[in-house]
Amino acid sequence: MKKIMNNPSQIVDEMLEGLAYAHNEIVERLSGFDVIARTSEKKNRVAVVSGGGAGHEPSHAGFVGEGMLSAAVSGPVFTSPAPDQILEAIKAADEGAGVFLVIKNYSGDVMNFEMAQELAEMEDIEVETIIVDDDIGVEDSLYTQGKRGVAGTVLVHKVVGYFADQGKSLAEIKEIADALVPNIHTIGLALTGATTPEGGKPSFNLADDEIEYGVGIHGEPGYRSEKLKPSKDLATELVTKLLESFEIKEDESIGVFVNGMGGTPLMEQYVFMNDVRAILEDKNIDVRFKKVGDNMTSLEMQGLSLTVIKFEDEKWLEALNAPVKTIAWK
Amino acid sequence: MKKIMNNPSQIVDEMLEGLAYAHNEIVERLSGFDVIARTSEKKNRVAVVSGGGAGHEPSHAGFVGEGMLSAAVSGPVFTSPAPDQILEAIKAADEGAGVFLVIKNYSGDVMNFEMAQELAEMEDIEVETIIVDDDIGVEDSLYTQGKRGVAGTVLVHKVVGYFADQGKSLAEIKEIADALVPNIHTIGLALTGATTPEGGKPSFNLADDEIEYGVGIHGEPGYRSEKLKPSKDLATELVTKLLESFEIKEDESIGVFVNGMGGTPLMEQYVFMNDVRAILEDKNIDVRFKKVGDNMTSLEMQGLSLTVIKFEDEKWLEALNAPVKTIAWK
Repeated sequence: MKKIMNNPSQIVDEMLEGLAYAHNEIVERLSGFDVIARTSEKKNRVAVVSGGGAGHEPSHAGFVGEGMLSAAVSGPVFTSPAPDQILEAIKAADEGAGVFLVIKNYSGDVMNFEMAQELAEMEDIEVETIIVDDDIGVEDSLYTQGKRGVAGTVLVHKVVGYFADQGKSLAEIKEIADALVPNIHTIGLALTGATTPEGGKPSFNLADDEIEYGVGIHGEPGYRSEKLKPSKDLATELVTKLLESFEIKEDESIGVFVNGMGGTPLMEQYVFMNDVRAILEDKNIDVRFKKVGDNMTSLEMQGLSLTVIKFEDEKWLEALNAPVKTIAWK
Repeated sequence: MKKIMNNPSQIVDEMLEGLAYAHNEIVERLSGFDVIARTSEKKNRVAVVSGGGAGHEPSHAGFVGEGMLSAAVSGPVFTSPAPDQILEAIKAADEGAGVFLVIKNYSGDVMNFEMAQELAEMEDIEVETIIVDDDIGVEDSLYTQGKRGVAGTVLVHKVVGYFADQGKSLAEIKEIADALVPNIHTIGLALTGATTPEGGKPSFNLADDEIEYGVGIHGEPGYRSEKLKPSKDLATELVTKLLESFEIKEDESIGVFVNGMGGTPLMEQYVFMNDVRAILEDKNIDVRFKKVGDNMTSLEMQGLSLTVIKFEDEKWLEALNAPVKTIAWK
């Protein structure tokens, strides 16, 4: 294992220090906590808080800022943040109109975020939550009951953050999120595993000519390993599975989001996007939103995921396109 | 070699198609050429054009857009674009006030961009150029006479693009660039080599516990290989060399830019930035601009570079902070 780091046990702390230093015009670190909060003025709006294990950068701190997340809390690498850390994020983010928690569906995250919700409610902060389970690759994975929450979570941050910024109430935001999440589906594939700084070994091994479909963002197994195929064939596999998972009516449009897992160059992500384009054009599907890049990573894993959002509500598209001031959304 | 691609000989073409599709609100591809141009209105300003071999994404197409580059031209992977391709970029970008070429100091790029300049002048387009040679790692490298042009080029794009947007004349922009470039210095380090799609083998091999200082962005050798050290020590090596290369006066400030080489997670880049911060704070150096992320990559190479810009002119800072509409600058 070769990593640019000091003590593996300090890596999250040092990362957050570096991040807060580099982007101090947008965010600050809560002293003594692994929480990144935005520095913009509070305006009695609903606050949106997310987070999870580290190792998925720029998620989630990269999406903190005006119009998106109010705060993000980081756990250790690939490990949920503890409830007291999440509670601090909630308290720091609160503008007096309630706090909305966006939780990726991993058992540890769900347990700890819900515990933090209870703690916050004891301090008279109203809290609502949404659990994102966009990964249609597998059911009941290594660390999850049901489907996992992966790259689609970033789109949830953006849509929910927009409506919070627009002054919607906590109940309205809960309603928007409940309608949104079932319309966001993702599948990933990996060329390599990811190596945690403390573990020192890859989460799984693939032969030199092998890939795995349906992997999660912590090296959880997927649904099939096989020999690496051309990008066109990978795109066909992922697009087909995603389109089968929705009913897309004639007048409905979609958005597509190619997410790099960390170690895959943009060149390959764009080649893949071009293959996705060709398939969707063939099917005459109206694509009204496109996004490419490393947004929800798995350390240095090589691979990518494809997310499709179905625009059952046109306002979600408006929300995705609205400008924000964050480190990583563009 | 595992890459998400189809035919290696088509990889640049397919990447540019994917990129133009994904970001059609900002850029378009010139039909029949490997040129990405911005779609915004022409206003009789100086146009800024850059480019080079592919494999450095998001450079250079990711920096095309209002306030930054007018067009970018891509060669094959790690190979300079041909003069006729550069000429098309110049012609597409021209708004009638002359075209400014930002060229990384690699022998092939310098030759082909200067040839394109002559061709453009024969078509009555006024052209000025700047050669960026920010890499202080080594002199006279594998593909270069003198110092190489690397990540600091992105800062040149930003500063020059800002002044072009502000309506400065071609002569004024040439003067600004001539003053700017000697104040931007970079050194890189690599943990792994990069594998080109057609080559199929890494550009160089490092042992499992070894790194190399002073590498370029095409796998050119650096100035020293040694065992991987903690990030703090790597930061000390790079910062020391960079500060020795400038005379920084008491009232002068600097900017620092940590650039990921493609395969190094943001987590490690931020840890490294935190170590750079500590060293600069110790020395009481006034840091007024900070940037972190993959901007000038070398395919999937693991490693990073550190760039220091000395603000001999305060207006460069204003230029770096001005908003732009591009794919990749933030």
